[in-house]
Amino acid sequence: MASWDDVAVREGYATIGRTGPFVYGLTNYIAANLSANVLLAAGAGPAIGAASDWVTTFPAGASAVWINTASLMSSDEESLRAVARTAHEAGTPWVLDPVAVGAGAPEYDAFVRSLLEFRPSVIRGNASELIALAGGEATGKGVETTVDSSSAVAVVGAFAAEIGAVVAVSGPVDYISDGSRTVEVPGGDLRLTQVTGAGCALGALTAAAVFATGDAFQGAVVAHAAYAVAAERAGARTRGTGSFAVALVDELSLLVSDEAGHTSPEALLGQAAQ
Amino acid sequence: MASWDDVAVREGYATIGRTGPFVYGLTNYIAANLSANVLLAAGAGPAIGAASDWVTTFPAGASAVWINTASLMSSDEESLRAVARTAHEAGTPWVLDPVAVGAGAPEYDAFVRSLLEFRPSVIRGNASELIALAGGEATGKGVETTVDSSSAVAVVGAFAAEIGAVVAVSGPVDYISDGSRTVEVPGGDLRLTQVTGAGCALGALTAAAVFATGDAFQGAVVAHAAYAVAAERAGARTRGTGSFAVALVDELSLLVSDEAGHTSPEALLGQAAQ
Amino acid sequence: MASWDDVAVREGYATIGRTGPFVYGLTNYIAANLSANVLLAAGAGPAIGAASDWVTTFPAGASAVWINTASLMSSDEESLRAVARTAHEAGTPWVLDPVAVGAGAPEYDAFVRSLLEFRPSVIRGNASELIALAGGEATGKGVETTVDSSSAVAVVGAFAAEIGAVVAVSGPVDYISDGSRTVEVPGGDLRLTQVTGAGCALGALTAAAVFATGDAFQGAVVAHAAYAVAAERAGARTRGTGSFAVALVDELSLLVSDEAGHTSPEALLGQAAQ
Repeated sequence: MASWDDVAVREGYATIGRTGPFVYGLTNYIAANLSANVLLAAGAGPAIGAASDWVTTFPAGASAVWINTASLMSSDEESLRAVARTAHEAGTPWVLDPVAVGAGAPEYDAFVRSLLEFRPSVIRGNASELIALAGGEATGKGVETTVDSSSAVAVVGAFAAEIGAVVAVSGPVDYISDGSRTVEVPGGDLRLTQVTGAGCALGALTAAAVFATGDAFQGAVVAHAAYAVAAERAGARTRGTGSFAVALVDELSLLVSDEAGHTSPEALLGQAAQ
Repeated sequence: MASWDDVAVREGYATIGRTGPFVYGLTNYIAANLSANVLLAAGAGPAIGAASDWVTTFPAGASAVWINTASLMSSDEESLRAVARTAHEAGTPWVLDPVAVGAGAPEYDAFVRSLLEFRPSVIRGNASELIALAGGEATGKGVETTVDSSSAVAVVGAFAAEIGAVVAVSGPVDYISDGSRTVEVPGGDLRLTQVTGAGCALGALTAAAVFATGDAFQGAVVAHAAYAVAAERAGARTRGTGSFAVALVDELSLLVSDEAGHTSPEALLGQAAQ
Repeated sequence: MASWDDVAVREGYATIGRTGPFVYGLTNYIAANLSANVLLAAGAGPAIGAASDWVTTFPAGASAVWINTASLMSSDEESLRAVARTAHEAGTPWVLDPVAVGAGAPEYDAFVRSLLEFRPSVIRGNASELIALAGGEATGKGVETTVDSSSAVAVVGAFAAEIGAVVAVSGPVDYISDGSRTVEVPGGDLRLTQVTGAGCALGALTAAAVFATGDAFQGAVVAHAAYAVAAERAGARTRGTGSFAVALVDELSLLVSDEAGHTSPEALLGQAAQ
């Protein structure tokens, strides 16, 4: 069990802002704006997209990289492979987000699997995606999952051990495993599934946190726990899904200052009680 | 005249959430995020974009499809044709949004017209676009209309009859026709024209509603009436155009729960008066 | 020194709404949505993207054009060149936003420089970008700047004189020069650097203002001063970066009505004191 209450999580998140990592990613145009704003809210500097020689120069020079495979909708397969290969060869940590794998498109699925050759540091997705990627039954419906994250727990641990990467599954409870350890991150808000790109943006944040903590497992935990608490705080003060998305970015941008400066009502109450 | 007050409209909208249709679309990257969030707010599951073999597998397996022809800015003509053809051959209802047709780009216009071969279930646009598509004078200025929706009424009915599709024109009053019947949907908010992608997102919502109601005409009416009331509620509690866009998504996500649970102030007042 | 308090600035901004310019642009898919919404908030009509023959017909017919070179991530080099060439040959004013030039990708940088052949009316960017484009040391980190705008002042004036364009550098203080005059625009809000696409959207607004004022230098000043005051007002009523972005668009959409109708609290107080 890991949460925002853990000092190591708060420290790891704060380190993103202190180190200001340059995080380069290929993602799809639906999720790109939210992903960039989530990275900026955390204190990272994002660059996104396959423009000219960015695909070879940026992943080599970046602090961390993430690839959302639905970026195929505006970049060709060779660009995705070039980014993955360059990150791998440069020793730059990179996060794979296999969006909609297992949802019924076999050529796409085969391409997504081919990227495992370049040894991602972290793979994150929903339960349908991770079960499908691990070779289980394909259960997705477009980009949505049809199974609960708990269904993926056993698969996640075995898959992580098999491929030597950290695997993180998002759901009502998130599960993160490096093959030997599996931690749960509870919390969040159901509306995370009703905001497009919220999962993808978590992949971007994970890349930043892996750099900041210097560890793939710890980075994945930090990103998921920070996201969960930001979603809870956003959910507590909004009703609809539009306001929730805006508030999610707000809360991510305020996590460190609220923590450090005790400026949030909860923090003030916490301080008064000490 | 149709509005949110009609039981059939409220029922049709609620059915989107109950059935959770998988709605696949090609749209442009300016409108994609809002379109996906509108679908999620209504309870549909969106997938967007021409990534690998999605263009043949997803429209065949989807509940409904929509094509915004400005998606040509990141997908090639063959992808758009493949999606339209696959939906048509699979009997999947699909919505055509001929963005900026008639605005002065003849090759683009010719391509848009060529998609009519694949028999869209619904065509939606502003007055300039629909008049141009029906063969009238081209009056657009980029993606904006220069004429009022009422100017399009006669054209809309004749065009619907000619091509055997439902035609819906957005404006201060929306007009929806299947060639024999034409209904008016009043309401909305002027700021719908000041939020980029608001019209495109209505096309996506229309696709979801056509599946949910099982009828192209009824689906188009449901989507337009729900959008109009959500825009009115959003407009009543915001001033600027940024907040309005956020509130529009909020209201779409709350329409059913406010209705069912009597959680809105209006609903509570209505209940108290019974 | 120029600010929103200058009558010419307020008049210039109001002229955007009165003339409703059709502004065509190529930008990247991260910034496209905000750019379009900023233009709509100011009263301009945007069209974005390289769809079919838009790249030759739209820049010829548009009131003004802007090109964000990171649009290479979804458009090819020839499309960008076609838009720039067409605008140049039609005498349509156009704004160049050399995103991330000097950040370590030499082929991309060379392409960006090649567009100067088509004589942009205004070039806008952050300090790193403009110093790099002017031939100085490359100091960027992805799309972020690593130097303050004041470092670019000398370079900006000399570069403007050399290439015969207005050059505008964004930062804590913005500097705008036509080679003989350099004005400062103070104000704004630090969170402008934490909202993706905020700089790009300023490029789009600059294009609209150049058309509205009929002058590249005056247009650049109007757009930067309006943006600065909108950011200040947005910053005063929000805490996180998500709400700030929404409020920025709000304030841009309300600048003219607040001014004309005295509907803002500040304006009402000002009126009462007269």
